[in-house]
Amino acid sequence: MKIKKGFLADPGNNYQLNVTKLMEHAIRNFSRQEIISRRNDGTLFRYTYKDSYIRMKKLANALESLGIKIGDRIGVIAWNSHQHFEIYYGLPGMGAVMVSLNMRLAPQDLSHVINHSGSKVIILEEDLIPIVEKVSDLTKNIKKYIIITDKDLSEIETTLNPIFSFESLLNQASEEYKWPYLDENAAYAACYTSGTTGKPKGVYYSHRNAYIQAIMFAAQFSMSVNDVVFQMVPMFHVLGWSKPQAATYVGAKLIFSGRWNLDDLDRLSELIVKEKVTISAAVPTVYMAMLENFKKREEKPDFRGARFICGGAEPPFSLMKGMWDFTGGELIHSYGSTEAMAITTLNMFKPWLRQELSDEELWELKKKQGTIVSGLDVKIVDEEGKELPKDGKSSGEILLKGPWITRSYFNAPETRDSFTEDGYFKTGDAGSIDSEGYLKITDRIKDVIKSGGEWISSIDMENFLMSHSSILEAAVVGIPHPKWDERPLVLVKLRENTQTLEKEDIKKYLLKKFAKWQLPDEILFIDEISKTSVGKLDKKKIREEYKQLYLKG
Amino acid sequence: MKIKKGFLADPGNNYQLNVTKLMEHAIRNFSRQEIISRRNDGTLFRYTYKDSYIRMKKLANALESLGIKIGDRIGVIAWNSHQHFEIYYGLPGMGAVMVSLNMRLAPQDLSHVINHSGSKVIILEEDLIPIVEKVSDLTKNIKKYIIITDKDLSEIETTLNPIFSFESLLNQASEEYKWPYLDENAAYAACYTSGTTGKPKGVYYSHRNAYIQAIMFAAQFSMSVNDVVFQMVPMFHVLGWSKPQAATYVGAKLIFSGRWNLDDLDRLSELIVKEKVTISAAVPTVYMAMLENFKKREEKPDFRGARFICGGAEPPFSLMKGMWDFTGGELIHSYGSTEAMAITTLNMFKPWLRQELSDEELWELKKKQGTIVSGLDVKIVDEEGKELPKDGKSSGEILLKGPWITRSYFNAPETRDSFTEDGYFKTGDAGSIDSEGYLKITDRIKDVIKSGGEWISSIDMENFLMSHSSILEAAVVGIPHPKWDERPLVLVKLRENTQTLEKEDIKKYLLKKFAKWQLPDEILFIDEISKTSVGKLDKKKIREEYKQLYLKG
Repeated sequence: MKIKKGFLADPGNNYQLNVTKLMEHAIRNFSRQEIISRRNDGTLFRYTYKDSYIRMKKLANALESLGIKIGDRIGVIAWNSHQHFEIYYGLPGMGAVMVSLNMRLAPQDLSHVINHSGSKVIILEEDLIPIVEKVSDLTKNIKKYIIITDKDLSEIETTLNPIFSFESLLNQASEEYKWPYLDENAAYAACYTSGTTGKPKGVYYSHRNAYIQAIMFAAQFSMSVNDVVFQMVPMFHVLGWSKPQAATYVGAKLIFSGRWNLDDLDRLSELIVKEKVTISAAVPTVYMAMLENFKKREEKPDFRGARFICGGAEPPFSLMKGMWDFTGGELIHSYGSTEAMAITTLNMFKPWLRQELSDEELWELKKKQGTIVSGLDVKIVDEEGKELPKDGKSSGEILLKGPWITRSYFNAPETRDSFTEDGYFKTGDAGSIDSEGYLKITDRIKDVIKSGGEWISSIDMENFLMSHSSILEAAVVGIPHPKWDERPLVLVKLRENTQTLEKEDIKKYLLKKFAKWQLPDEILFIDEISKTSVGKLDKKKIREEYKQLYLKG
Repeated sequence: MKIKKGFLADPGNNYQLNVTKLMEHAIRNFSRQEIISRRNDGTLFRYTYKDSYIRMKKLANALESLGIKIGDRIGVIAWNSHQHFEIYYGLPGMGAVMVSLNMRLAPQDLSHVINHSGSKVIILEEDLIPIVEKVSDLTKNIKKYIIITDKDLSEIETTLNPIFSFESLLNQASEEYKWPYLDENAAYAACYTSGTTGKPKGVYYSHRNAYIQAIMFAAQFSMSVNDVVFQMVPMFHVLGWSKPQAATYVGAKLIFSGRWNLDDLDRLSELIVKEKVTISAAVPTVYMAMLENFKKREEKPDFRGARFICGGAEPPFSLMKGMWDFTGGELIHSYGSTEAMAITTLNMFKPWLRQELSDEELWELKKKQGTIVSGLDVKIVDEEGKELPKDGKSSGEILLKGPWITRSYFNAPETRDSFTEDGYFKTGDAGSIDSEGYLKITDRIKDVIKSGGEWISSIDMENFLMSHSSILEAAVVGIPHPKWDERPLVLVKLRENTQTLEKEDIKKYLLKKFAKWQLPDEILFIDEISKTSVGKLDKKKIREEYKQLYLKG
């Protein structure tokens, strides 16, 4: 669309939105606010925004002392820690670009990200050295490694070379630093996203993108200095779903989770209760484990007023209602993507719906992904790109445009058709939007199953399967079929200690919601369903693995 | 400061922030939200965001049908009404500039504003015709007048020519309209500010300014769709202190006050109670009258959770505590200016101060103007422009810079020294900032009284005088004195039905806080203290009126 010039308001008014300002202003007003960081050994480190800011300035000086200049790209591979938070501001604040590296990528993909970004330095956590060593032969351009560790460098065994100590660099650096005034379109950070095909694609967020998105998120989520934000979502995953920036903007208390996996949830739940967390974000599986923990506690925890963002998959009704009934905490269903800086929707109620809908209808509504946050333009379109009505029925591909939505993947001309001519990002997700603005994801475009010309929604079927009390995880894919083109295949992982289910039980259960022709031709019980590096079902791999199944028959 | 280019994040990513988007997104999510508009006869008009949006699009078509083009300036002189709200979006949305006209300006100033802005059309409320008629000979460039009225044009007697009916234009217009995509630096609106000297100066707000400020305000004030916003501050006064835009952004319910003066406060209080207002803004005098009303009511109103922004002058302790104790509503002290889009500070507590300070200390803290909102850079400087420490003691001129702060007055090169070389706006207010970021205004630079080389704060003295139970209003100015250069003069308006005060009583009262040498040489009891068009003490006029007083002696 052509930009109309209009009547220029205020010549010379060119204040540039720099992310560093979020921190600078927090220091003016909230310097005493606390930050807690859970070390990998489980102990807690506590300091304040003020302490953190001093170390951010030291980091900027330290990076300059290593010859890093404005515009340089630096890879960062780290857990959720106060050091990672310092990097979030200190590194892009001095003008470099923070390239977030996902430690769960396969070596070939990880080395691609490092090389494609042109990174020359990597900052890494000590226990991630083996992962970086594994790609060092493939990433010869890396000239320096900065290791986050409490140990002396001499105690560290590694083939990486040369290495520097994050803490020593900071100790030697001055705490006086004047942030450069950056063009707001300069890159703040980069995240690479693994699609269904090809190499990871680079999403480069500008300072302006990140700044506006942070304020938007704080506003849409009514965040304030009274909030206690638990940073559980990996900070290498879409900038931690933008909470660290929004929290800074309002001066909220921040808690970084450290390294964790599902086995640590009892300890994390303990921390959440103790520190009276009011905001968190995670996938449903994590909240399910937390709720189990809360129920086991001697004292019933009180999370009234808390907002737990739940993304990645549809939270089961039992989880949402269970959390609400038992703790007073509200699960907020959300949906997003790397290209949209994570938060595209939030499911919160409007006063009139609270009045008009029954309890049951409200819970049903909570299953939708929520309303598209204000600030974003959205369209749903059919296969020809024609816009569909927002009537809650018509389902098509979701297109997004807005002040923090990606317009192009970095240096990847072959991906041009992921974006429309008029500037929308094609999410690859299919959904409908109702008259109240609630989005319902109906499928990944690539995951839709086309059986004899009719569509079957794999996501609907997965969600319904997961609502069965004996099923822990389920994946539904379409695989080639000689007669129907594609037919559904269901993979199921059962809960432990529940009664065994037979295939016929599952089919009977599915018949409650699905037509007979939509039922899967085969149901397989397996111990582990393939996941991608960010924990999503790896449908690409599943389809590949079982592609012969119906053909052989 | 030189802008450093950095590493360009996402070429082609140039999404322009257009204010119209705030409304467009509200319609997607909150179209059923209610808007109430109080007619000048006191009756209420109710409709929804959706209804309003249709009329905004009709207005845009109507303006185009009158030949108005992108970049044209249009004067608007109106009360707080749903039509004024429609103008806020429909007029700048189609690319024209909304020039807010203050009906309280003297004809010479009003005509200056109209001519200086280059307005060619004026939209005015029917009962304001006489004011516009008075300047019509001085504003020959105005080619069309659009009158907001329910009457048929034939019933309206006026010398203005040609006239159009706002309602008829809308009735005839199509409701299909595609908003142009405007450069975010294009002017959205203009407000003219009357300084202590010279002609009113034009502050032109860009779409970008207004958009970012709206989100900022919503975020800093934790506004949401559950809020009920009472628009009482005149909408010609710094865009209504930015509440209409922020309310739209979050989809809050809006109530427009219609025309009102202090005599209407009983009726307005009635409305506030009935509609369960949660956000409002006004000067202390207004809240004092409201509190009186609340106390007279049969049923004690419950405003727990409500945030009443109080600006223009320091709210007396008795008012803040009275409102809190009696209704649960919190007065939020705020400070601002036209050049800073009204809200520069908000006085809200931080959790640690709530814990550490006694009740008395917290109330004392509430008298400060509050913390500078995040997003703004602030400096306090001495007379040489040297930055002073933020130690809560050092007082100097407050300089502001940020994404919505004016960088220049429109077409007024003679005002260049109101701004610093490095882009700060010089507020003309003096203040100190403490280590927690709270700003305390100590004086208007021009209002400081310099007696024999020593400073006396006129604002401190005014605030202290107003805390006396028998004093309704007080003004303190410095006027020429043969020996001391300047000496303070006090003007006092007493409350009705209170015991009469003598000059000596007041001096005795002042001695509780001020040194003997700081006491005024003269105290005058008067019936009406001069005010500016926006209701501030008109110190310029007062100083002029009494300039001979101490010289004659």
